[in-house]
Amino acid sequence: MREVFQQSLREVQDGLVKIAELVEVAIDNATTAFGSSDVALAEQVIDGSEAVEVLVAELDQQTFDILARQQPVASDLRLMVGALRMSASLERMADLAQHIAQLARYRYPESAIPKGLKKTFVRMGALDVEMAAKVVELLRDQDPNTIDEIRDLDDDLDELHAKVFEKVLSDKLADNPTGVVDATLASRYHERFGDHAVSVAKQMAFFLHGVAE
Amino acid sequence: MREVFQQSLREVQDGLVKIAELVEVAIDNATTAFGSSDVALAEQVIDGSEAVEVLVAELDQQTFDILARQQPVASDLRLMVGALRMSASLERMADLAQHIAQLARYRYPESAIPKGLKKTFVRMGALDVEMAAKVVELLRDQDPNTIDEIRDLDDDLDELHAKVFEKVLSDKLADNPTGVVDATLASRYHERFGDHAVSVAKQMAFFLHGVAE
Repeated sequence: MREVFQQSLREVQDGLVKIAELVEVAIDNATTAFGSSDVALAEQVIDGSEAVEVLVAELDQQTFDILARQQPVASDLRLMVGALRMSASLERMADLAQHIAQLARYRYPESAIPKGLKKTFVRMGALDVEMAAKVVELLRDQDPNTIDEIRDLDDDLDELHAKVFEKVLSDKLADNPTGVVDATLASRYHERFGDHAVSVAKQMAFFLHGVAE
Repeated sequence: MREVFQQSLREVQDGLVKIAELVEVAIDNATTAFGSSDVALAEQVIDGSEAVEVLVAELDQQTFDILARQQPVASDLRLMVGALRMSASLERMADLAQHIAQLARYRYPESAIPKGLKKTFVRMGALDVEMAAKVVELLRDQDPNTIDEIRDLDDDLDELHAKVFEKVLSDKLADNPTGVVDATLASRYHERFGDHAVSVAKQMAFFLHGVAE
């Protein structure tokens, strides 16, 4: 019985890793599509988001069944509660990757990135991809150092987010409201992606240390 | 023992209602401050968001303790799992009310609402407040009809959100990038507030009917 239980906990953990891997692919493709106006790649991200939803629903059901049948306590319970919340964060990360891809698709064949912001968005995109990769690593290896690495990356992301607003509010984009809207939304999506990665990191900290951060 | 257990479930439910009531006050004040450039009211919303965070953290701890000690099953377990998720949605709703208040404060003594969008934002604000009131009602009375009412309000909100972009991308705001940024962010915050109200409604549907929607 104990062995069956441990096996089911491992399945939840593996399920989280699998979803996080899909999120990493999605944000990598979304930011590439956004940077290069690759509409085919954007469509691929948009079509792929349903797969994440299905996996999240399955994982939630599995977690709920473990709570109902096996009644875990202590760190096992923390993992189950954490899984329910991490799955929600991962689903939001996939949604945000989809939103970034949608921006690329709306503006195609034009670029969704207004003049003067290309480099900033390339860096924001790279940070999002790196954070997604760190989330996969954290869920798989459970190394507490990865939690701090995710927080540090999020600080860098927040700085770039502020920088986008500075540029957008300067005169350069004064005659381009579409560019202002796109940059505002895109920056917000990139930044929120990072916030959700931090949420996952906090849940893992709660699981590993037993205290909410 | 059973009585103690029922009492602790009721406490979680009461805790959710209390947090939702604070969210309702926050969004009411935030949208009023936003519409009337009332900086004192905006500050009140910003200062008040910590109280929600504290209540959410307490409620989560309480829910976790019930899961650990009382090991609920069936609809009791659904309520506990739902509470963990609803508290997260309510916390985000409070964050979004705070973001709306912050926009009002940033632009003070100017209005954060660009010309031609005043009516639309008044209606979006009123919808957010109505949705928050419906969330309180749903958590308190658990009437499934309220779930559909929340969904309908969210449809109206989404229509207004689309309308903001139409206006923003028309020529009227071409020389006002700050107005475009404010309107884009404000509309997004109002719309996301509604999405989280729908999330709470979905969790209640899961609790009441036992199937994910």
